[in-house]
Amino acid sequence: MKIQAPPGMRDLYPDDMRLQNWLFDAWRGVSRDFGFVEYDGPIFEYLELYTLKSGEGIAGELFNFQDRGGRSFAIRPEMTPTLARMVAARANALPRPIKWFSIPRLCRAEKPQRGRLREFFQWNIDTLGHDDMLADAEVIAALAEFYRRVGASPAEVAIRVNSRDLASAVLSAVGMPASQMDRAFAAIDRYDAANPDEFMRRWQDAPKTTATSSSGPSELTSGSAATGSIAPGAPSTGASAGEPLAAFVPTARLLELLKSDFETCAATVAASSPATGSPGAAQLRELFDLLTSFGVSEYCRFDLSIVRGLAYYTGPVFEASALAGNLRALAGGGRYDNLTSLLDGPRVTGVGFGMGDAPNIEFLRDLGKLPVLGEGVTAFVIDLDESAWPDAVSVLTRLRRAGISADCSYRRAALGKQLKAASARGSQFAVLVGTEYRATGTIDVKCLRTAQQQRLLLAALLADPAGTLARLSAGPA
Amino acid sequence: MKIQAPPGMRDLYPDDMRLQNWLFDAWRGVSRDFGFVEYDGPIFEYLELYTLKSGEGIAGELFNFQDRGGRSFAIRPEMTPTLARMVAARANALPRPIKWFSIPRLCRAEKPQRGRLREFFQWNIDTLGHDDMLADAEVIAALAEFYRRVGASPAEVAIRVNSRDLASAVLSAVGMPASQMDRAFAAIDRYDAANPDEFMRRWQDAPKTTATSSSGPSELTSGSAATGSIAPGAPSTGASAGEPLAAFVPTARLLELLKSDFETCAATVAASSPATGSPGAAQLRELFDLLTSFGVSEYCRFDLSIVRGLAYYTGPVFEASALAGNLRALAGGGRYDNLTSLLDGPRVTGVGFGMGDAPNIEFLRDLGKLPVLGEGVTAFVIDLDESAWPDAVSVLTRLRRAGISADCSYRRAALGKQLKAASARGSQFAVLVGTEYRATGTIDVKCLRTAQQQRLLLAALLADPAGTLARLSAGPA
Repeated sequence: MKIQAPPGMRDLYPDDMRLQNWLFDAWRGVSRDFGFVEYDGPIFEYLELYTLKSGEGIAGELFNFQDRGGRSFAIRPEMTPTLARMVAARANALPRPIKWFSIPRLCRAEKPQRGRLREFFQWNIDTLGHDDMLADAEVIAALAEFYRRVGASPAEVAIRVNSRDLASAVLSAVGMPASQMDRAFAAIDRYDAANPDEFMRRWQDAPKTTATSSSGPSELTSGSAATGSIAPGAPSTGASAGEPLAAFVPTARLLELLKSDFETCAATVAASSPATGSPGAAQLRELFDLLTSFGVSEYCRFDLSIVRGLAYYTGPVFEASALAGNLRALAGGGRYDNLTSLLDGPRVTGVGFGMGDAPNIEFLRDLGKLPVLGEGVTAFVIDLDESAWPDAVSVLTRLRRAGISADCSYRRAALGKQLKAASARGSQFAVLVGTEYRATGTIDVKCLRTAQQQRLLLAALLADPAGTLARLSAGPA
Repeated sequence: MKIQAPPGMRDLYPDDMRLQNWLFDAWRGVSRDFGFVEYDGPIFEYLELYTLKSGEGIAGELFNFQDRGGRSFAIRPEMTPTLARMVAARANALPRPIKWFSIPRLCRAEKPQRGRLREFFQWNIDTLGHDDMLADAEVIAALAEFYRRVGASPAEVAIRVNSRDLASAVLSAVGMPASQMDRAFAAIDRYDAANPDEFMRRWQDAPKTTATSSSGPSELTSGSAATGSIAPGAPSTGASAGEPLAAFVPTARLLELLKSDFETCAATVAASSPATGSPGAAQLRELFDLLTSFGVSEYCRFDLSIVRGLAYYTGPVFEASALAGNLRALAGGGRYDNLTSLLDGPRVTGVGFGMGDAPNIEFLRDLGKLPVLGEGVTAFVIDLDESAWPDAVSVLTRLRRAGISADCSYRRAALGKQLKAASARGSQFAVLVGTEYRATGTIDVKCLRTAQQQRLLLAALLADPAGTLARLSAGPA
């Protein structure tokens, strides 16, 4: 009987696994260099951890099940509820700021179809318990540092930064009633400069009446779905007045605003309410100054069209977008007011982002920035004579104990055949063990790329493996 | 509302996560040095991948669910079915031997209770497509190398090796009918020298009639359950003759055999069938010779009581056991005849083992071999004057870009307070940035352990971070 991988799930054969490990190493490296520490949680949680925030409707978007005791669980679709639960449980014991990262495996019950994954990994970074824009700037700097390290330049990826408070103040200044703000954000969330049709339709059409009373099932995924390699469900909103949004702010005016720079937006707000201005504008100004101090201003730009879904975020929001093509989202995040509000925890503010593995691998592949990762070992041990075979196994063992990845032929064969096997195995060096090894402890080490060969004591190789092998790779002295 | 972690699931706060990463790094290091390459599969599979082998009854031991399309899935309880599926799909394209490892996250629907985890990780190593005992020896050598690296000596952990063929031949030689062999293995599988009561009862009591027609639900978990930190369900067997096993082989005789050395067992078989002997005995003899070549014979011993469950394994079997206390199982594996038999794949033989994370962490904790892992950063950047703060952020950024993990105080404070924060953060060095940095590029680096402090160019530190910091740690030159 033939059984396939479940639809939307990935088999990671060694080639793919190497790439995944490379990506995870890059994520871990940036996280650690920026002083974040890693955590993880269970692969499934009580279902109510998700329904609590998003309503029962969310269950249909999750893989959920009951155990024999009748308890309901769901495989985690995002990490934030787990983070909230874990932080709430120890909120008073954890020193501030809490700088945590994770690389969770996540699942969403997407309808299986090409390009929509039901399982993916996501890099999550969060700084909790600190309201200063320094935390926001550091998190954005970590995001930029990842792209710098993997070779994606500011010409290829942009971190587009906005503030939900500023966006609200700007829209308000040009006539959008507060009652329509959620609908307006939902429409702007779909804005795509290269392909504005859907946005235009949403802005100009009379709203459909929706059945959801709060922000509906997509609240859970909005803001992080695109970064998780899964296209977000259409945000729905409870506000359902009869008039199109264009009746409050004409489409042309809105499109002009969405392309405006920061100072224009700030001025629009200041002109409308000169006494107070927008706290969001002041925050963003401070944030952009800090991003300059962190040396990442080249990667960052203001963009009023970034609003990141509906409910979750409360302050600055940002999104990393691929600049070629249609600005597809690669990562997204922002500041939130109270992580643990639903969990009876003390108030914990924070800022963080999520970055999915699949869209970023695709992005880097398109740029030609994925590394070529060989699966080869460092050394391939060869017996020059069948009588030397036990010694060859002993040499193999000593290399491996010294932390040198090493392999050998499973079948005894002539030198030429073993050398071929060494090449096929992607080995960098052949270590030739002959009958003299037992008496003298000497071996021959051959660099398979340069064909440079040298007789030396195994003990000398083991005393300085990196140096010895580097000299052989470099060619004749 | 307070929501807990689901029962039997673990929250990995940073302290626990560091330990897990340390263990995974050790597993990966050994695997790679031994020439194994990593793979992974989906967190859930089609339910039938498990029921195919073990019958519908297994579903109750799994977390299973349906998607909206009515397909049935189960969270993976072990990695072998996924390995079989992946190998069967590419059996003809994969070069032999296939040397793969994985560190899967696994779940089993255990009844939640203290010490029984529903979620755990397991190190899996398998060599496929090679029948020679060399493959078995290498896999066992990798297992021993792990214990050597983490500091567990042969006095603390033993790899007990047997052959199911030899065990069968020995039992046969002393009178066990072939029809009772499965029952005898199931009883011996429960043998515990320190606590033989349950075994004695099973050996001496008349068998209960069991409803299962094949080997029943526990086939899936038998042989690897203990290594996955979950106690195995009682193996059940279809053989249900009315007589106790002691009627065929007296208990005293059996207990004597279970403590016998290899030569005694081989001689018992040879005396009974001098023409053929046991192929298992010949295999084991070759295997023990190879284990000596691999330098791990100190860790390995023959033990006839190791039979590793019922159906899965066909040749040599082995189990790593903690020698203190009751020989609790830490890892187990063996040789299997045909990995892909149920999946319409070509015949693929193999040998491998699984090692669970929780029992090994506990074992190493009891031995006092767990490392003390600080969460600290390497450098903590301090501004000596608030006007130097933007420069401090710039230094912080340059350190991080050079791959030096670095942090700073989020709130501006006096030097003493920042130094305290550096200590609290577990930093090794303080990097002091004053007003002269802008003009001269100099900083002061202070080792927080030795209190040794040095003024130097930031550029000099960045040119050789490891060397510079090592000199400071070493104290005055």
